[in-house]
Amino acid sequence: MLVSQSSPYPANADAAASERALLERRARLLGPTYRTFYRNPIHLVRGSGVWLYDAQGRKFLDAYNNVASVGHCHPRVVEALSGQAATLNTHTRYLSEIILDYAEKLLGTVPAHLGHAMFTCTGSEANDLAIRIAQHSSGGTGVIITDFAYHGATIATAQLSPAAVGAKGVPAHHRTVAAPDTFRDHGRAAHDFAGNVAAAIEDMRAKGIKPAALLLDSAFSSDGIFFPDAKVMREAADHVKKAGGIVIADEVQSGFGRLGQGMWGFANYGIEPDIVTMGKPIGDGHPMGAVLVRPQLVASFGSNTGYFNTFGGNPVAAAVGLAVLDVIEGEGLIENARNVGAYTSELLRALQGRHGAVADVRHNGLYFGVELTADGDEAVAATKTSAVVEAMREDGVLISSCGPRGNVLKIRPPLPFARDNAEQLAETLDRALSNW
Amino acid sequence: MLVSQSSPYPANADAAASERALLERRARLLGPTYRTFYRNPIHLVRGSGVWLYDAQGRKFLDAYNNVASVGHCHPRVVEALSGQAATLNTHTRYLSEIILDYAEKLLGTVPAHLGHAMFTCTGSEANDLAIRIAQHSSGGTGVIITDFAYHGATIATAQLSPAAVGAKGVPAHHRTVAAPDTFRDHGRAAHDFAGNVAAAIEDMRAKGIKPAALLLDSAFSSDGIFFPDAKVMREAADHVKKAGGIVIADEVQSGFGRLGQGMWGFANYGIEPDIVTMGKPIGDGHPMGAVLVRPQLVASFGSNTGYFNTFGGNPVAAAVGLAVLDVIEGEGLIENARNVGAYTSELLRALQGRHGAVADVRHNGLYFGVELTADGDEAVAATKTSAVVEAMREDGVLISSCGPRGNVLKIRPPLPFARDNAEQLAETLDRALSNW
Repeated sequence: MLVSQSSPYPANADAAASERALLERRARLLGPTYRTFYRNPIHLVRGSGVWLYDAQGRKFLDAYNNVASVGHCHPRVVEALSGQAATLNTHTRYLSEIILDYAEKLLGTVPAHLGHAMFTCTGSEANDLAIRIAQHSSGGTGVIITDFAYHGATIATAQLSPAAVGAKGVPAHHRTVAAPDTFRDHGRAAHDFAGNVAAAIEDMRAKGIKPAALLLDSAFSSDGIFFPDAKVMREAADHVKKAGGIVIADEVQSGFGRLGQGMWGFANYGIEPDIVTMGKPIGDGHPMGAVLVRPQLVASFGSNTGYFNTFGGNPVAAAVGLAVLDVIEGEGLIENARNVGAYTSELLRALQGRHGAVADVRHNGLYFGVELTADGDEAVAATKTSAVVEAMREDGVLISSCGPRGNVLKIRPPLPFARDNAEQLAETLDRALSNW
Repeated sequence: MLVSQSSPYPANADAAASERALLERRARLLGPTYRTFYRNPIHLVRGSGVWLYDAQGRKFLDAYNNVASVGHCHPRVVEALSGQAATLNTHTRYLSEIILDYAEKLLGTVPAHLGHAMFTCTGSEANDLAIRIAQHSSGGTGVIITDFAYHGATIATAQLSPAAVGAKGVPAHHRTVAAPDTFRDHGRAAHDFAGNVAAAIEDMRAKGIKPAALLLDSAFSSDGIFFPDAKVMREAADHVKKAGGIVIADEVQSGFGRLGQGMWGFANYGIEPDIVTMGKPIGDGHPMGAVLVRPQLVASFGSNTGYFNTFGGNPVAAAVGLAVLDVIEGEGLIENARNVGAYTSELLRALQGRHGAVADVRHNGLYFGVELTADGDEAVAATKTSAVVEAMREDGVLISSCGPRGNVLKIRPPLPFARDNAEQLAETLDRALSNW
């Protein structure tokens, strides 16, 4: 879905010229690292709830962005941000009550064994810190991830992100295992998952590498979005714990109520992670991340590493984080994710009956993976999946795709997504699939 | 200056009990990694300009925090933050004008060879990205830093931060060199600096390590705050460039006008860095960082690494960054740093005549290092330096200390620091030194 060329679909001549100028200016100032979504990139100027508006006043249904988790520009969050930024915004080496109120509330959403909260500014920083704590406390180095995982953009987390850097970008002391794919091979990969983790630990040991951690995205977002049986997940976690490793639940994509059963994806599997990491949806767009951790893992961490994060957990971040938790609770967004998620899933499954391309619809709450196939030809399926995403964008609904084969539609709307939004999504997808 | 015990100096019984409760709650929720400044930690509730206010309404002159670079809670910055957060706050894979306006303005402050701006959320992320780009583009791995450098809290930047992790925390492929100390040994270390960098490169080569980068804080903040001769700095940079390495100017502490001559510390030395990194003062407290880079270094970086930063450079960050640049320009803060910096330096030098403990006063603009000695006994000097910092806090002025020996007062106030603030600082320091 990431492209750099200019638009092939000018809405009108003036708009097209203005957009071309914007793309040229962007390429000149930001360089080629900055790629856009969609062949016809969207010039956004406003966001509100589940809606995004472009420079021509066109309205898009956002069915992709989980960062704006409680809705774009939620007034309660903006108010908390503005009020605290006007009052006090300095670091955690002075005392402040609001960070303690926030830490207490956030820790109240996880099992009691996770006793301490530490704050960063991004999910990447949270995963980087979690790996650092895991290596420090276990004395190991090797980390187990899935084949097409994404865990961040720092040097250390990029090395644990084959989805971004390729399998060759993963250093020799780490191990990748097949994601628990609940669709392909009739779920064989899901069934084998715990055994694969055990084999990875065994292989590390054979090569003299001490295991440090198992790092798993609770929704397997980059691998294609899977929600495997709790049993294999618990077994995988147990293998790692027995080997002296740390279990890290990466909730950067799956967390904060998205999966509709509770706040956290790991809880659905009944596993007890030693560390939980958070990012994207935590601040409705404000740069924040968090690491919740077993106290004993960080007993000597600070004195041995001098760890400090300048902006992490400052009073503004705490105010924003508190507001997001209040909105999730006050507006019943977890219940909404469960109910509207189930309804959306019904509508998507109905499309499966009408379109042969729809091979599988997977979901938990408001997180959907729709796997598309084209007579077994993976390259064709990927191209056609991209075309569906592009067609939906032209038709006013924003989604994306994921998975190692690029053939899974990734649908992950803000949590206030309503039944009529679900209907618009399904109708638009119905039209897009008609040209498959 | 970092301590964890509870207060020895209760202002009154009620306040002391309330502060003890806060410290206990903090230890329980955040854990031992979160240490406070001062033996008598400050419970802050409000900030404005150069002032911070505690829960009892006591006012402190902030002569330490460069994050609140244009003043705590600057109304122009708060307005930009609030307005943009209420309008649109999403990532850089959609088009947006404001990030381009910001990139253009920021790139306008550096030499033209630095053509692209990339945005992160912290200075740590900026340095981490700079190292990643340097290693990617040079094909090397080894990085040269100073003996007591600090460059960040991610795994990769902590390995380049002996001030935090100790010399043993720096991996074998990196090299540390003595900082260009302009005070000790009559500036011999400053004189030898370029030669030491050349020797480090030679030593890397002898061990089969390809040099990737020289990473220098332009003010040598953790090493003790030094402003060496431009010539040795240029020579050091030249050695690295000749060896195929990348010169990275870390402006996280020294940047955004603090040094009073222009926006950036590296410019004072006349060196041409390949990459400039920014953090702390960039957003007056908002979590932001930036990497300005030679375009050819990132020509293939994005396509090879899939690099993306979710929050970095979003419209809110861009609005805040623009407001900070506007305030620096509109309020003449660089000129203020130069003028009030010179005046403050005069007052500090006058103290040198009155107190034998003041061995050296170093400064550029509003960044001061005041080196204290105690008859050649380093341990005594460190303890007494801490006592001076604590006494000043009790007397209403916030500073800290730095350097490998812990005997350098670190004074780095917000840029709107005025002449009467300088007088209060000097008078308070005069009183604190009287008990040396």
